[in-house]
Amino acid sequence: MDERVREHAELLVDWSARVESGDDVVVRFDAAAHDLAVATAAALGERGANLVAVNSSEELRRAYQLAHDGEFEADPEHELALYENADVVLSLGGGRNTAATADVPGETERAFATARQGVREARLDTRWVSTVHPTRSLAQQAGMSYEAYRDFVYGATLQDWEALAEEMAQLKEILDAGSEVRIGKPGTDITMSIEGRTAVNSAASVAYDSHNLPSGEVFTAPYDTEGTVTFDVPITVRGRRLRDVRLTFESGEVVDYDAAEGASVVGDLLDTDAGARRLGELGVGMNRGIDRLTDNVLFDEKTGDTVHLALGRAYDANLPDGESGNDSAIHVDLITDMSGEGGEATMSVDGEVVQRDGRFRWEE
Amino acid sequence: MDERVREHAELLVDWSARVESGDDVVVRFDAAAHDLAVATAAALGERGANLVAVNSSEELRRAYQLAHDGEFEADPEHELALYENADVVLSLGGGRNTAATADVPGETERAFATARQGVREARLDTRWVSTVHPTRSLAQQAGMSYEAYRDFVYGATLQDWEALAEEMAQLKEILDAGSEVRIGKPGTDITMSIEGRTAVNSAASVAYDSHNLPSGEVFTAPYDTEGTVTFDVPITVRGRRLRDVRLTFESGEVVDYDAAEGASVVGDLLDTDAGARRLGELGVGMNRGIDRLTDNVLFDEKTGDTVHLALGRAYDANLPDGESGNDSAIHVDLITDMSGEGGEATMSVDGEVVQRDGRFRWEE
Repeated sequence: MDERVREHAELLVDWSARVESGDDVVVRFDAAAHDLAVATAAALGERGANLVAVNSSEELRRAYQLAHDGEFEADPEHELALYENADVVLSLGGGRNTAATADVPGETERAFATARQGVREARLDTRWVSTVHPTRSLAQQAGMSYEAYRDFVYGATLQDWEALAEEMAQLKEILDAGSEVRIGKPGTDITMSIEGRTAVNSAASVAYDSHNLPSGEVFTAPYDTEGTVTFDVPITVRGRRLRDVRLTFESGEVVDYDAAEGASVVGDLLDTDAGARRLGELGVGMNRGIDRLTDNVLFDEKTGDTVHLALGRAYDANLPDGESGNDSAIHVDLITDMSGEGGEATMSVDGEVVQRDGRFRWEE
Repeated sequence: MDERVREHAELLVDWSARVESGDDVVVRFDAAAHDLAVATAAALGERGANLVAVNSSEELRRAYQLAHDGEFEADPEHELALYENADVVLSLGGGRNTAATADVPGETERAFATARQGVREARLDTRWVSTVHPTRSLAQQAGMSYEAYRDFVYGATLQDWEALAEEMAQLKEILDAGSEVRIGKPGTDITMSIEGRTAVNSAASVAYDSHNLPSGEVFTAPYDTEGTVTFDVPITVRGRRLRDVRLTFESGEVVDYDAAEGASVVGDLLDTDAGARRLGELGVGMNRGIDRLTDNVLFDEKTGDTVHLALGRAYDANLPDGESGNDSAIHVDLITDMSGEGGEATMSVDGEVVQRDGRFRWEE
């Protein structure tokens, strides 16, 4: 076994999920992630945690959903009991075909998800972590060879997270103290309020309210957005390519949109519900182990020197206790590249430049 | 997908487990049985049952057990809750390597099994069924090509179980009414009491107290065994070949043993505990869809024209309510072939011949 698989498993169990002896752990994976599951099982055994292995085969879920009449029972007792009694849920992403459920009607997917809301909440109530095992299918989606893709994923994942967390803490401090963020570069001049909001130092550990491995971003929940932004990092949403999406905001809402490719998808997204026209997230990618774009938002949005804004739902972790932020059925991240603009790309907080062309002020 | 996989799944769900709408079902399988799992998921979806898919990878279990210090926590809450809230548990056997756990010390396996006694009891308290998906690894163990092995498994499994249940009911009726069974053939003359015991018509359905698919045997729990029996069907026990095992009983206990091959294994088995020297089961194979021996006791013991006796633990289903039968840590089936003995091989109940050279009296 690739030694990096073992390192990945240990990072997941120790740094990310903070597993301790006696923890009841669920590990969810598909056959394609079996190597990482075996290494994770060994790490859990060594730490004296208890393990239930759940199969998350998408082909199996597709077969079940397509055969069902669509009237899914709410929160089956056995599934709910499993997650309600779990301390930790580790989801190992990476299957054999990213299009495995392409022929499941969206309506069926939604009905199934709605019926499992209690199960999902029980899962989110644990020390859950989602990670990615580099599979051939994901390499294919990234347009990369298997070996190069493995190097890419481990480069992004096997990091000194403690050091990165310390670096990211500097940005969190600035955002927590700030009131207004401005992002400016050719084609982009946008301001948003962050007053009263708390930034998350997303350091790939539940100890940092961060549930993805890899992570490496600092994000908050903005409001009262004004101005225009161009997202020049191409991305695939709902199977369609989006390129150079441009959004114009007034009083926090999108009032105009355009795109070099995929404009109709953007229109559909904005029409989802009222919250879909407002921002739910401002995120700053700080993972410089992610050295290229792979058309996978989990990696792309964390890329160093990028900033992303998400249309739709905001995360509770950014809000004061008991306050609810922007609500929507969607959360779609769109990314803009802040590097290589000859000094013209800046992110400022309350008028002071924090990042110029991707370099933070503490890096000058 | 091989149409027989779909038939197998539907037989499992409908005939064997009697799944109904709203049932909470756990399906356990390893990657090698994924095809059968997908077909089972479709059958469950169509019937409106709820599904949790559990991964039973033996490589994963091995990694966990070897890394653990061996002080396994008793009945982890999340695992126990899953099975306590399940109505049906379907175990799809068939992995990628029958020797996957060969280097796990027996002591570790036993400690793990002991710590999961509550989980096991919760599982046995459901409408559980174990079946076998034909994998390359099982074909290899049987010394058969993959295609021929699939034909073999489906020949044994895809049967008119209702018709076989009716045929087997005739033997059950005779055994339930009888007091003493005698088996005689060259090298074998043995009698045992079955007075007060109830035979199980093992027709591969929970409706018949039968939890294996395929099945196809009638079995009861004998006692007060006297005489000698020779088991001329070779079988592998604990990785060792046993051939022509001969046991001599007095007052229900083995007093002498011998074997053409593997005699020391027989000696070890008999020394396990007091119950290991007594019989726990008399079974009569009646599945004529099993057309050859494959050195897999799950199939071999159900082969038509064979009779098997098990050293060790008896099944509760054969005993009057509240009575406990022979107790032991082992249950080892040994098989004798009743066919082709020129009229000399007979099974009699209370002096009347029920089967001669493998043919039952109602077949004459």
